[in-house]
Amino acid sequence: MKNTDELRALVDDALAAHLPHGDLQGLDDVVAATLEGGKRVRGALCLAVGQALGRDPEEVLPAALAVELVHAFSLVHDDLPALDNDATRRGRPSTWAQYGEAIAVLAGDALLADAFRLALSYDSPRVARELVEATLGMIGGQYLDVTGTEQDLAALNRLKTGRLFDASVGMALEIARVPEDDRARWRAFSEQVGALFQFVDDLLDGDGFAAAYGEEETRRRADEAAERALSALAELDADTTVLRGLVEGLASRTA
Amino acid sequence: MKNTDELRALVDDALAAHLPHGDLQGLDDVVAATLEGGKRVRGALCLAVGQALGRDPEEVLPAALAVELVHAFSLVHDDLPALDNDATRRGRPSTWAQYGEAIAVLAGDALLADAFRLALSYDSPRVARELVEATLGMIGGQYLDVTGTEQDLAALNRLKTGRLFDASVGMALEIARVPEDDRARWRAFSEQVGALFQFVDDLLDGDGFAAAYGEEETRRRADEAAERALSALAELDADTTVLRGLVEGLASRTA
Repeated sequence: MKNTDELRALVDDALAAHLPHGDLQGLDDVVAATLEGGKRVRGALCLAVGQALGRDPEEVLPAALAVELVHAFSLVHDDLPALDNDATRRGRPSTWAQYGEAIAVLAGDALLADAFRLALSYDSPRVARELVEATLGMIGGQYLDVTGTEQDLAALNRLKTGRLFDASVGMALEIARVPEDDRARWRAFSEQVGALFQFVDDLLDGDGFAAAYGEEETRRRADEAAERALSALAELDADTTVLRGLVEGLASRTA
Repeated sequence: MKNTDELRALVDDALAAHLPHGDLQGLDDVVAATLEGGKRVRGALCLAVGQALGRDPEEVLPAALAVELVHAFSLVHDDLPALDNDATRRGRPSTWAQYGEAIAVLAGDALLADAFRLALSYDSPRVARELVEATLGMIGGQYLDVTGTEQDLAALNRLKTGRLFDASVGMALEIARVPEDDRARWRAFSEQVGALFQFVDDLLDGDGFAAAYGEEETRRRADEAAERALSALAELDADTTVLRGLVEGLASRTA
């Protein structure tokens, strides 16, 4: 079995080699540039769940790339001046700052469509359905955030971050044809992983939960989410060794 | 068989009743508002092709709505200040002018994702694949237009307008399970319908072809495209009565 770092590298290499659709014309170079950098957590999670269920990473890779493309889409549009107005991303100019707003809008659109193209490479439409449901929830969360309608950080994060983590797991479950009845425990796991990721993100950035409730309380919640994620894994009928390592890595990450 | 106006009305009623995904939170109201008005040409074309192939409009309706949602997505994003900077659309404030740029970006994103959700309601992923390929081509065309890279109007229109007309036909072919070998003639038809629509649009708006080549030449090209579309229909093994009416209606439309 491949460990988390090997799975991350797999996603990273595949994204670097990923050729956005030829019909995108020159926009494909912009799309490729938006895919550079990034921790590949969602893609690696997708591969790791597939691997735990006995699926070859190659089979799960299109879904793993698709979830990374949806994530990249959300960053490119959220960075726009009208939204978060972030001129930098991963230490470099954000897409709109580098290419202008018009190109950034179109690049985000292209990433979203290309993500569905990848998720649609499977025989069953159920893989792509997982992704589209999650994407709609994520966009709804961004709407609540932009308009300030939702004050409950946990509810907001379940949409903005949680839904895509859930799709990472859900797509792998679809590919591995896990029976519906066995999915609830996997969903419980994905919910805790999404929460864990967000708590640690807020700790590292000093915003969100960390700004609202302080560092200590956020660390406590992160550790609690990690523990619950590990408990959920323990109840699963699958080889969850690598997934345990992934959770521990997310809990202790410093970047 | 239902005529073009009846098919348009079907699409119109279904769009008015369409409930965007619940997870979109308050954004669903904005999405619903972006769907008001519009000629429903693409949706009616999709239903008419399905009908010509013996398919019930109800079966084809999700695909017809999906193509209208992708069209609406493109309008909402293209109207943005950074792109075409259009403050009005169909005689009313455009989405960004009414709700602000941030909401307009998110509403466009939601329309695109919701379109794929509808196209994914079929058992086969091939319906949604038609739509995603067309959407990528359309976005590529918009990129060429925004950057001024492509000076050939016909090539630009084949991407910006033609691809979505092609998907309207292509999705109906998928739903009706038309064998691959029989599709080329349908594709020849859809190409001419897309060109016809654009020539007449330019005539009515006094831009594009009409501005570049004059009214007379554009009218000539529109009539030529209509004639070729009708010839393509005549070669098809299907009841194309309503489709003939649709072509004639597009050629003679005044709005």
